[in-house]
Amino acid sequence: MINVVAGIDIGGTNTVIGLVNKAGDCLIESSISTRGFIHFEDFIESVSNEIAKLLQKIGGNYSLQGIGIGAPNGSFNLGVIVDAPNLDWKGILPICKEVTKQTALPSVVTNDANAAALGEMLFGGAQNMNDFIVITLGTGLGSGIVANGKLVIGHDGFAGELGHLNAFINGRICGCGNKGCLETYASATGIKRTVFMLLAEKNHPSTLRGVSYEKLSAKMITEAALNHDLIALEAFEYTGKVLGAKLADVVATLSPEAIFFFGGLAKAGTLIIEPTKRYMEESLFPIFRNKVKILPSGLEGKNAAVLGAAALIWQELE
Amino acid sequence: MINVVAGIDIGGTNTVIGLVNKAGDCLIESSISTRGFIHFEDFIESVSNEIAKLLQKIGGNYSLQGIGIGAPNGSFNLGVIVDAPNLDWKGILPICKEVTKQTALPSVVTNDANAAALGEMLFGGAQNMNDFIVITLGTGLGSGIVANGKLVIGHDGFAGELGHLNAFINGRICGCGNKGCLETYASATGIKRTVFMLLAEKNHPSTLRGVSYEKLSAKMITEAALNHDLIALEAFEYTGKVLGAKLADVVATLSPEAIFFFGGLAKAGTLIIEPTKRYMEESLFPIFRNKVKILPSGLEGKNAAVLGAAALIWQELE
Repeated sequence: MINVVAGIDIGGTNTVIGLVNKAGDCLIESSISTRGFIHFEDFIESVSNEIAKLLQKIGGNYSLQGIGIGAPNGSFNLGVIVDAPNLDWKGILPICKEVTKQTALPSVVTNDANAAALGEMLFGGAQNMNDFIVITLGTGLGSGIVANGKLVIGHDGFAGELGHLNAFINGRICGCGNKGCLETYASATGIKRTVFMLLAEKNHPSTLRGVSYEKLSAKMITEAALNHDLIALEAFEYTGKVLGAKLADVVATLSPEAIFFFGGLAKAGTLIIEPTKRYMEESLFPIFRNKVKILPSGLEGKNAAVLGAAALIWQELE
Repeated sequence: MINVVAGIDIGGTNTVIGLVNKAGDCLIESSISTRGFIHFEDFIESVSNEIAKLLQKIGGNYSLQGIGIGAPNGSFNLGVIVDAPNLDWKGILPICKEVTKQTALPSVVTNDANAAALGEMLFGGAQNMNDFIVITLGTGLGSGIVANGKLVIGHDGFAGELGHLNAFINGRICGCGNKGCLETYASATGIKRTVFMLLAEKNHPSTLRGVSYEKLSAKMITEAALNHDLIALEAFEYTGKVLGAKLADVVATLSPEAIFFFGGLAKAGTLIIEPTKRYMEESLFPIFRNKVKILPSGLEGKNAAVLGAAALIWQELE
């Protein structure tokens, strides 16, 4: 029998389920809708059934050892999801208890960015690193921190909220209720806000002048920048300036070997990495200069969220 | 035979040496001058001789197991002191190699703030905590970070430079060459700078108007504040505002159970803790509110630097 685990990535719209071996190969994968379940228990039942189907499909030679889950606002310490804004079920969801009840297997949960960090460490670009950070640049900015080879989850399981570092006193309004949070500048949404700020301030012609706020995406801004659109280029410069300055603080705190960028906006590659690195170096405490790498995720292209969730339960089983 | 270790605290003027048992009791202590040695090796020889004298004094029933050293710019990873600004010997000092050569015992070094954090964990107020931070408010601001029960030293051994977080873009000039570093506001020197800023800006009468910059100390500012001096009180308020806002960033990164204040300015107690806590709470990402304690060090009054250095080698010997 070959041991496998299930890695589950719960998103607001879809939930992706994969069976992953110890080497980090996703042997089979499918997805179900996250929506349409009134009771959370019914959703978990549907996830369990899907795992059983996948096991059947790959044949009888595999033994399922446990289930790892990446979910928005997942708390590793408590095994629950707490007030996830984009899920249908509110309050505290005892996901590990429910999964273990229905599958009789060990299960663990963490937030998506922590799962990405574990995936990076076990299967991605951080395989020989003990101290690194993964920054997910999606709708918001998430982060997973590894120090001494271990995920830093803090006292309450919620460490790594770098998206809510303060970038500007009285800055942009954030969904969390504060002002000036880093993710309102450095994320797919943040760079969109920056484009609109620049469209208001500058007179350069730009293809982005024809796009509504609702329609504008990080991908469109990236494409415009690759076509030398001045507004788009300046938006990346500004994003790198804000992000780089805050990463200098993060480096002074944690002194990581590398910072990995992951997610939608990270697909812009050099466009976002180069200015971030330049401004970070400019702000760094001298002893940290020219020591810290900013790298694209080594998992980009693979289903990192599933691999990360699988990495989480593999680590737990050891 | 009872096992003991030597805890050594190297300061710019004096070096304090203590023999410490596993329970954290300092059995005997003395100090030698750090100055007056042209060669670093001669200084280490003098330290070794002092350790031997102390062992002799407490009688034959003790067995020395190792030597822990807290020193400015001490690098745990490399076992060296790097460019310590207030020591007579420049460049890289291979302190562990030299100590072990002269004593034939294992030795470890770290910076003063990391030693304080270990001391707090083994013998102080953090004995049941896995995630906490110690902030030393002395001439500068140092910090020791513990996550998952381990000191966070980062990739190069230099993590925990919270004194060099950026508090203000283009802020006060810092000794490190950058501008606006937190320690130029939140430290014994920082609050002195703030008093002089307030003496310039305000018209309140103040006993501090009679004191030169060179003569002014954190202790005098504390005493003035306790006597309701408006400038001194406002200086603590301002220090707490700057420090509290940056600690909110640190909490979002690490989610510690507690932050301990240690060192000269920390002796001001509530005067510094209360405004820091108030402004920190105001800036915190909502899920962290009312969760993080700010506490005076549980080692204050004891020789924390010696105990911390001893804690370091005890941890290493395990």
